[in-house]
Amino acid sequence: MSTINVLSVVHDEFGVPSKVLKSAQSTIPKALSSNQVLIKMLMAPINPSDINMIEGTYHLKPQLPAVVGNEGVGEVLEVGRNVDYLKPGDWVIPSQAGFGTWRTHAVDEVEKFRKISNDIPPLSAATLAVNPCTAYRMLKDFGNLQPGDIVIQNSANSAVGQSVIQIAKAWNLKTINIVRNRDNIDKLVSHLKDLGATHVVTEDFVRTPGMKELISSEGRPKLALNGVGGKSATELLRHIGSKGVMVTYGGMSRQPVIVPTGVFIFKEVSAVGYWNSQWNVENATSPERDLMFDELCDMIRECKLIPPQSEVFNLENFAEAVQSAMEGFQEKKKVLSMENFD
Amino acid sequence: MSTINVLSVVHDEFGVPSKVLKSAQSTIPKALSSNQVLIKMLMAPINPSDINMIEGTYHLKPQLPAVVGNEGVGEVLEVGRNVDYLKPGDWVIPSQAGFGTWRTHAVDEVEKFRKISNDIPPLSAATLAVNPCTAYRMLKDFGNLQPGDIVIQNSANSAVGQSVIQIAKAWNLKTINIVRNRDNIDKLVSHLKDLGATHVVTEDFVRTPGMKELISSEGRPKLALNGVGGKSATELLRHIGSKGVMVTYGGMSRQPVIVPTGVFIFKEVSAVGYWNSQWNVENATSPERDLMFDELCDMIRECKLIPPQSEVFNLENFAEAVQSAMEGFQEKKKVLSMENFD
Repeated sequence: MSTINVLSVVHDEFGVPSKVLKSAQSTIPKALSSNQVLIKMLMAPINPSDINMIEGTYHLKPQLPAVVGNEGVGEVLEVGRNVDYLKPGDWVIPSQAGFGTWRTHAVDEVEKFRKISNDIPPLSAATLAVNPCTAYRMLKDFGNLQPGDIVIQNSANSAVGQSVIQIAKAWNLKTINIVRNRDNIDKLVSHLKDLGATHVVTEDFVRTPGMKELISSEGRPKLALNGVGGKSATELLRHIGSKGVMVTYGGMSRQPVIVPTGVFIFKEVSAVGYWNSQWNVENATSPERDLMFDELCDMIRECKLIPPQSEVFNLENFAEAVQSAMEGFQEKKKVLSMENFD
Repeated sequence: MSTINVLSVVHDEFGVPSKVLKSAQSTIPKALSSNQVLIKMLMAPINPSDINMIEGTYHLKPQLPAVVGNEGVGEVLEVGRNVDYLKPGDWVIPSQAGFGTWRTHAVDEVEKFRKISNDIPPLSAATLAVNPCTAYRMLKDFGNLQPGDIVIQNSANSAVGQSVIQIAKAWNLKTINIVRNRDNIDKLVSHLKDLGATHVVTEDFVRTPGMKELISSEGRPKLALNGVGGKSATELLRHIGSKGVMVTYGGMSRQPVIVPTGVFIFKEVSAVGYWNSQWNVENATSPERDLMFDELCDMIRECKLIPPQSEVFNLENFAEAVQSAMEGFQEKKKVLSMENFD
């Protein structure tokens, strides 16, 4: 057989996912050019940025028509004759955002792929490149943290937030984790504490004297991680320590970050941003990136970094999966599986 | 004569300057202890932070009763027997904020003073420590500027703003200077251009397509200096380049700095603060501080850094001077002179 049948999830215009997404059948030749690699996709998550890219509202706009999906893990089936970096059976993830992971197979130049351990759960491999890497870099590159230091974060129940909790725990950092109040708050608190959270508090609690007591017993955080913006970010700034750093990596509230002038001048706080896709562009082959994947895979093997609670859909049920990913409170990440394809 | 009669401007409560400021007569002994220095003050400016300190609204609250004034130049009259750093005839400025410069004479430990060239105009020496040093440090320590690079600033007509223009010019940096519109705008534009401003634009112009043309011809600034906050700071962020730095050193509008999330994440802009008083505390005897004063005094001698346009009041007329300093648009900085005292 000289070709492979491929099923992809694509769109040829920007818009509401339920209207613009469709599946496409295609074939790719099995004969590879010298630098190419053929992979079979295993799993790919549905991230909020995927939805925004479909809508055309994300900072990265793919050229249309586009295969959807920025993250996921695949298995190498065949490599071109000049490819030494990979061999059949290796697992790979896309080196950069925009690869198009929601498909059963892909052929591309070897430079487009990064090898990843194939002795970790596929779900961990498929969800490693965006959220755990974002958490890792923010904890590593900002605030000059030492063991025992304290980090405060909002959106603590998000995928990034849960990664922050676990990586901080592995590095002996303490965390103060802010979540929105909800009916089953006790269950959430206990889940995050099981992951390693030092403190879990609600946004309501943050505005009470109890929060001041907590801060005065623990000391002021050197690093604040902001995935929300608006009032929630302003609360982080209220509690961060002098010369602290606030890293913004998301803006779930769709409100800007508001910083009182005195926080900059007298508290000497720095406010910066982190964007994982850009870091990857600038560090495509950096040793820091290799070290990061090695460390994160070690944590996964030691069960110090578990994948997000997930609900798995077969790729052909992408429409249902996307719909489900867009509905309100997300207890579980939606993940597409290609394992039932040859 | 074994004592010196001293006239000081003091307050023993916080409040409106016209109500709480008063002059005080005192005497100080001429006999110095081994580490002390006796100085005669020559000149001291009235800065906005002096007013706020009198009101009790500044971040630094002096212990009361307090002698007013953070900045100024004095001449050494006598030194204690262990003092090698200074000799009679030397000029000095306070090493740190909060010294109390609005008085005719002072005695204090030698560590409280920093020697400054006595071959520059007294007005330059009296106004060097706050505004030119703030401008120097912001241009030197942030944004990694190279000759030819562009800096954008609001509040360009302020004392800091005018120092920024001149120091930038001396260092071959280009400046885009934003000022508020006013009746005699042409006169202001020509004054700032005489100082070395590359471009002077009004806040109204900043929101027009002309500003975009200006930016696209000059390139995007690597550094933005914000003394205003609110909308004015948001405009700086609109024009700053990718990976640029915005340094906030003042908040004249009394509005916070509002940063759209994408400016942090996708434009990778850092927002930080600079406070000269704190820098001085951390660099009391650093070589960087010596180098800064040497360079600034060289610029003054070469007429590359001229003092702000000023109106001089005798110290005993402090009430009139303070009142005048608090009135709306300030064409000229108000400065107190002690030269008619012995």
